Amino acid sequence: MLQSDTVNIDDFDLKQIHDFAVDLARQAGQILINDSLTRNHNIQLKKNAVDIVTETDLKIENFIKLNIQKSYPDHKFIGEESYSTKNANEKTYLVDNSPTWIVDPLDGTVNFVHLFPMTCISIGFTINGKAVAGAIFAPFINQMYSAHKNGGAWLNETTKLPLQQTPISIDAPKGCIFSCEWGKQRGYTENSNLYKKVNSFINMAAEIGGRDGKGGMVHGVRSLGSASLDLCFVATGAFDIWWEAGCWEWDVCAGFIIVEEAGGIITTANPPTDYENVGIPPAQLGSRLYLAIRGCTDNTDAKETSKQSQERVIRQVWKRVDHLDYTRPGV
Amino acid sequence: MLQSDTVNIDDFDLKQIHDFAVDLARQAGQILINDSLTRNHNIQLKKNAVDIVTETDLKIENFIKLNIQKSYPDHKFIGEESYSTKNANEKTYLVDNSPTWIVDPLDGTVNFVHLFPMTCISIGFTINGKAVAGAIFAPFINQMYSAHKNGGAWLNETTKLPLQQTPISIDAPKGCIFSCEWGKQRGYTENSNLYKKVNSFINMAAEIGGRDGKGGMVHGVRSLGSASLDLCFVATGAFDIWWEAGCWEWDVCAGFIIVEEAGGIITTANPPTDYENVGIPPAQLGSRLYLAIRGCTDNTDAKETSKQSQERVIRQVWKRVDHLDYTRPGV
Repeated sequence: MLQSDTVNIDDFDLKQIHDFAVDLARQAGQILINDSLTRNHNIQLKKNAVDIVTETDLKIENFIKLNIQKSYPDHKFIGEESYSTKNANEKTYLVDNSPTWIVDPLDGTVNFVHLFPMTCISIGFTINGKAVAGAIFAPFINQMYSAHKNGGAWLNETTKLPLQQTPISIDAPKGCIFSCEWGKQRGYTENSNLYKKVNSFINMAAEIGGRDGKGGMVHGVRSLGSASLDLCFVATGAFDIWWEAGCWEWDVCAGFIIVEEAGGIITTANPPTDYENVGIPPAQLGSRLYLAIRGCTDNTDAKETSKQSQERVIRQVWKRVDHLDYTRPGV
Repeated sequence: MLQSDTVNIDDFDLKQIHDFAVDLARQAGQILINDSLTRNHNIQLKKNAVDIVTETDLKIENFIKLNIQKSYPDHKFIGEESYSTKNANEKTYLVDNSPTWIVDPLDGTVNFVHLFPMTCISIGFTINGKAVAGAIFAPFINQMYSAHKNGGAWLNETTKLPLQQTPISIDAPKGCIFSCEWGKQRGYTENSNLYKKVNSFINMAAEIGGRDGKGGMVHGVRSLGSASLDLCFVATGAFDIWWEAGCWEWDVCAGFIIVEEAGGIITTANPPTDYENVGIPPAQLGSRLYLAIRGCTDNTDAKETSKQSQERVIRQVWKRVDHLDYTRPGV
């Protein structure tokens, strides 16, 4: 049964919840490191050859779930692996107003299997359907990203994010690092999501004047294979723009609050019809369609506030990207 | 004047040269970290808006060059920045048989400016035009990759590479992580290198059966923005395949010996005409066209030696990639 009544956020100690998430993510990271040493990952396929799960994903999800149930028995829990088992077909969005933990026990499973260090544990917490606390721990690079509402975003609990306070490029997307992922849907026909994703990547990369005026000449195109870590690098300021579709609420929940607390904003990947003038809608957690822009300072040269700069960049991205299809029930 | 006589490699203490390179790379890494803290990179453009140099590149190159000249006054030195200043137009390949240090003081300059941690110092050493020692240090993730001929490849001087001893996927490129870069040439017309690069990326990513039989369904597509670190992750085994063109000898020199000592092989990115049967040529350091395959164990299921497995993967990549144009004088 979905919880439709709004919950009073003041009833929650978000700092305590944050600290609990950080501690849990770090413990889970130790399991990840230990399991990586065995080099035997017992890979199981899910939807296709690139959609995989290992025993480690299941073990860590179970560990996190048990700990949450012990400390917060009244809270809901949504984890990638238990969700996927139960909801393999319909993929309904289940997040409601209840206090809910949304967890990806191992984001970047392909990376983990190949021992590429961009892999992490992502633990998010929502109230009224919005992320309000989260921790993402990448044990192989020993980086802990965390935040809770109005508490700021942090690297290793000591360094405030973003790492540098700079305006965003006035020629954006020129001058920006553009982060994107090829994803798991690999059908490549004219109406497929992959076709439209790659078409959009090319627009962002191509020189100014190219691609019928859509060339964005971004500073660089980066693909790490982990949505959670992509969002962490938006929070640090390394990635100016993250445009991605096809991942799920457990891939982005903790990242949402970390980016927001670092001054970033997140909206939909899909350009609205009147993209030049429409108000910028906040991203819907379960929409699978995300566009994140890093935090920035006011741009005095351009006489823009930081928010105006971010909104300008969003419209410049929307101008260059295709409309993708990732509908699901409940959103 | 080019040194055409072959040099006797036995006259060199490669372990000592290796240790010197490691020490120098670590010291240079400290400069990189210190400069990153100022957050003021004074970016200068080179060929276009994405081909940049900072004061830090120049400072580190000078530091490395002076130290090499002090310890090895008879050796030649080729560094990205001093080379680029003198040879901006013709881009002639200058490496000959002489003992030569080939250095990228800061690989991943765009990453550095944005504080994305995939940035490194790359110090390679060649004799007779072949890389025989090298060190690559990524200070923001505190990883030192190094090797010298017949001495093995190492992470942080303590962990032997590759990290895991596994056969390579029998269905490769399916099951492989494919590493590639969008690069600095951003013209996108039917005969441009970017067009052909992206076309190749799509072939590697698309599902089996797609793209007129060229679909490779790789496990993942990764782009880090640093050729040197791409090669390090080939050496660890994380990246099964690295296919890249357009970078230079200083981007790959140290990486070549690190990959080779980790059991990997490197050939040309450009598919030969008779790609299914031709002998596999070793990559030419200055060719700007590279295809690296990670080290692997024999594949007993497929009754293949590791070398046969690697050569099979090379032909499977060649089947799927376009012929690129990166000619230059001297190669």
